[in-house]
Parts: sequence; C-alpha cells; structure tokens
Amino acid sequence: MRTAVTSDEYIQGILGGDRILLSKAITLIESTRKEDEEMATQILEACLKTGKKSKRIAITGVPGAGKSTFINSWGKLITDSGKTVAVLAIDPSSSISKGSILADKTRMEDLVSEARCYIRPTASSSNLGGVARSTRETILLCEAFGFDYIFVETVGVGQSETIAKNMSDLFLLLLLPNAGDELQGIKRGIMEMADIVLINKSEGDNAIAAKTAAAYIKRSLHLFAATDKNWTVPVLNISALQKTGLQELQQQIDAYFLNIETTGFFNYNRQQQNIYWLEETLQQELRQRFTQNNNLQILKKELIAKINSNEITPTNAAKLLVQKFMDKI
Amino acid sequence: MRTAVTSDEYIQGILGGDRILLSKAITLIESTRKEDEEMATQILEACLKTGKKSKRIAITGVPGAGKSTFINSWGKLITDSGKTVAVLAIDPSSSISKGSILADKTRMEDLVSEARCYIRPTASSSNLGGVARSTRETILLCEAFGFDYIFVETVGVGQSETIAKNMSDLFLLLLLPNAGDELQGIKRGIMEMADIVLINKSEGDNAIAAKTAAAYIKRSLHLFAATDKNWTVPVLNISALQKTGLQELQQQIDAYFLNIETTGFFNYNRQQQNIYWLEETLQQELRQRFTQNNNLQILKKELIAKINSNEITPTNAAKLLVQKFMDKI
Repeated sequence: MRTAVTSDEYIQGILGGDRILLSKAITLIESTRKEDEEMATQILEACLKTGKKSKRIAITGVPGAGKSTFINSWGKLITDSGKTVAVLAIDPSSSISKGSILADKTRMEDLVSEARCYIRPTASSSNLGGVARSTRETILLCEAFGFDYIFVETVGVGQSETIAKNMSDLFLLLLLPNAGDELQGIKRGIMEMADIVLINKSEGDNAIAAKTAAAYIKRSLHLFAATDKNWTVPVLNISALQKTGLQELQQQIDAYFLNIETTGFFNYNRQQQNIYWLEETLQQELRQRFTQNNNLQILKKELIAKINSNEITPTNAAKLLVQKFMDKI
Repeated sequence: MRTAVTSDEYIQGILGGDRILLSKAITLIESTRKEDEEMATQILEACLKTGKKSKRIAITGVPGAGKSTFINSWGKLITDSGKTVAVLAIDPSSSISKGSILADKTRMEDLVSEARCYIRPTASSSNLGGVARSTRETILLCEAFGFDYIFVETVGVGQSETIAKNMSDLFLLLLLPNAGDELQGIKRGIMEMADIVLINKSEGDNAIAAKTAAAYIKRSLHLFAATDKNWTVPVLNISALQKTGLQELQQQIDAYFLNIETTGFFNYNRQQQNIYWLEETLQQELRQRFTQNNNLQILKKELIAKINSNEITPTNAAKLLVQKFMDKI
C-alpha cells in the first residue's frame, strides 16, 4: 500500500536526497491512475523549476555486447571519482518478461552496493509512448535529486533507441570486436545516432580483431554519420571486464560535454527535444482521441479494405475519416 | 484557359493513350481549387480500378552526380527495347526556382524527342505534403496510362527522398567516384534506402578510383543496410555519359523485380505504402485542423515559452492543447 505522502513531502524528499521518496515519486509518475495525475504534475513542476541538469547518456548495444558489465565498470569509475549516477532503462519487452534490467543487477555487483549510484528497473507499461513519458519524467526527478550522470540503457533492437536518443545529451553505442557480420543485429539507423562508439571485449585473443573493427567502423561512420554538431565520433577499444580503455572514454565524454556546452548545442538540443516531445505527445493524444472512437475504427478498417481493392486512394480515405471525426465531437 | 472536359473524357483519354489529356488530368489533380476536387477523385478512382502496375523507380543523388544524363541514357535504353517510361520529379525547391527539372530537359535530349517517353515537370506546391500527394496521384494516372516504368527523380538533399522511397518499388542512388568525402553531401539515412547503388562517371581517369569507391561502399552497406527483403544491394560502376554499365544495371533491375514479385514483397510493400500514406494523411489533416485554430496557435506559443523556462513539461503542455482542441469543436 502507498502511504499518504503529500506532494510537498515528495518534493522536499527529492531535493533533500531521500532515495525512498525518490523511488516512491517515480512509482507515482509511472502510475496511470487518474487520481495520481495531479500530484505527479505538482512534483514534476517543482523538480523542473530547480533547473538542475545532469549529463544524460543513452547506452545501447546488441544483446551480448556487455552493456551491464560496462555500466558496472564505468559507473564504478564515476562513483569512485566522487560523482553520482542514476541508471534507468527503456525496455519495451519488459512488460512481458517483467524486469530484465532487475535481473541484470547481478552483473552490476560493484554498483548496486554503491551509495553514489541509484538503479531503477525499467518502467512497466504496455505501450512505448507510456514508457517514453515516464522515463522522461523519471529523468527530471533524478536531475532535481542532483545526480551528475543519468544513464538510459536500451536493448539495441528496436524503437527504444529513438526514444533514448531524443531524451539524452550523448548516445553511446557498444559493439563487439568481430568486424562487420554481427553488426547486422543493430537495427538500421542506430549506428548513425552514436556520438561515441565502443568496441567492447577488446581483450586477449580479440585484441587484433578489435583494432581492425574499430578502424573499419571509423571509416564507415565517416561515410554515414554527418551530424549537425561539430564532433568527430570516436571509436574506442575497451574491455568492460578488464576495465581497460575507460579512462580514455571518460576523457572523450568530458571533451564531448565541454564541446556541446561551449557551442551552445547542449541547451539548443534540449529545447529541440522538448519541442519534439510536445509534437509527439500532441500527435499521440490526438490519435488516441481518434482511436477511442469505435465507429471511426470500424470505418477505417472498411476503408483500408477499399484501398487494398483499388477502390479509393489513401488521401481520400484519410479525408473521409477526419471529416467524420470532426463531425462526431 | 482549361477547356470543359468531362471526367469521362479524361478517363477515356488516359486509358486510350492521349498524352494531352494525361497532362491536363495531372494539372487537374495538382489543383488545390475546391471545385476541381470531385472530378479529380472520379478520375483517380477510375484509374485505380484498372489495377495496372508500372515499375516505380526512385532515382536520387547529390547535385552533380549526373541524374539527368543518367535518366536520359538509361531511359533511352528502355525505350529502344520497346518499353515506355514516364519521368516525374519531386523537388521541394522548385516552387522557388520554378521548374529545375524543366531546365534539365536539355540534358535529356535523347528522351524528350522519344515517343515512348513522357516527361512531367515537378509539381509546384508550397508544401511537401501537397507535392507528395500530387506525385502519388500522378503515378496512379501514369500507371493507368500503361507506362512500363515510372521514374521519380529527387534532388538527394532533403525530405523528398523519404517521400519517393514510400511511393516506389525500387530506390536507386547515384554517387560519384571519389570514395568517402563528397558523400557527406548525401543526407543521413538516404544511403540506407538504396536497393541499387550506382557509381556514375566511372570513366577515363576516374576508373580506378571508382572501383575502389564501389568496393568501399559495398562493405559499408553491409554494415548499415540490413533490410527486410532478401536482397543484397549491388554497387555498380557506370558511365551515363559513355553509356557503359547500363546493361548490367538492367539485369539487376530485372533480377530485383523478379525477386520481389516472386517473394510477394512487391504487393506487400505497396499495401504497406498505402497504409503509410493513409496514416500520414490522417495526421496531416488532423494537424491542419489544429493549426487552423488561431487561439490554439497562440496558446501553443505561450506553452513553448513555459517549457523553455522550466515551468511545464511537454507532456502536460500537449494535454492542455488537445483538451482545448476537443472543447472548441
């Protein structure tokens, strides 16, 4: 049972560094119950007003790339230097498998016991739009709490990367040392999102192959990844297991943030992201009003059948539907 | 002045191979006048019912890649073999520059005089959604007319490629022989759309560099372009000017269409494209109803200012706007 905490208590708790109240507040904003909405809004707006900003880092890679081990090793390096880190996750499959990130805590053994680290299992929601919203809002709570870093981990095989990209300042992609072949597991478009590419498991027998892979990926990125910011994507060989290459990574991370803060890209990007989410949510909400109307859904099915049998164009079908929608309300 | 042609006359004209009536019908569907809409719909639906299908090929490349010369040379090869081709264009800049494709007719000198070829300058519309709709509908008229091939040319630097991709069966990308550097002119994501890549100007002094470029691009594509169809993207060296490599291209084109027709991807893809356009148009139309409301636009601006000053989340701003929208109508 949820105890009756007031929104002021939540806010004071979060700003005062109370992890239990932070966790409870996250649960509250994840809630889809109508009666939780107002309090969630109050807490969020109070957190927003603090204006605190963490370094938001999206971390992705195919299953097996060693994301959890990497987060454990790099996260420990961060907390050892006196900084704090929150680890969140976007995993659309988790509503079925129930918390794959929780399971991964066994691979984050150095971090789970670390006072400067906060690990939050992925939000369970049946739809990606809901996961996106609650992750964005969890980030806001964590920023108000004052974490230096926020990691947003994704699984590297679907739409969750676009979501993570649009709520982070830096996108980290983990790959394996076998040049070429296994990269097919990475969905189209994800490679281009990367600000830093890591070839993990660049250790022992893999060392030479890993160097070749890095050179190859660097060349290919040159071909594909023209970006709107003045930044050449580094491709680094690391070993999360043996904790090598992480200092170099940290230097690149620092250089990246110095760069985007100096050029103004940091603030510009966050404003653009906010407008992106405003437009996305607008469309989602409008679509939802549209979808909730049963008669419209029946008509839409009929029209799709007519499109498939060459009776009507998609344009005219859409116009008919919108006309009906405007008449109904 | 437009003469008073009935919709039946238009339809008979198009099905009977009358190019003047085809051109007039295209002008009619491009019209945004309310009184032309009904007739345009009648013509389109009659054309749809024929069920005729051309090979729709999107052709793109950076300015200077030699698109017009290529279309001229390959188009001539097609018409010489007894087949017919229609050349359309999507060029969002043309509403300013007034018909860049028309100007390019000087580089299609073999084609313009060819009875089996029909060249239509790009639709002039102030917005990309309008261009997308009229190009899609022009394609339908050209299919009913009976063209074997429909080329949709784009400029290779913007959103027009996504539009072309979503209304074609095959996406052809023209590149230049200098490996790497100049490819930066191609926008992110376009390389991944390609079903066939051509290195044009692979002639004379360029021959060796062009082979290196082809090998390099082939390797990189392997890394980036995992697709949902069973097809390895060929990278071919051609010279549109000297008309070399075009027979090999034609073999690949034939192999590609044989492949997608055999696997069922051809029909599947067209159905998916229709649903894509239905959803796109739905969103456009809804957004338009939303945008037309002045009070909502004023409120939206105020809310964006509040988002930027950390007073409200994008989610809540969107919810407020949709609520106001639903109240108004």
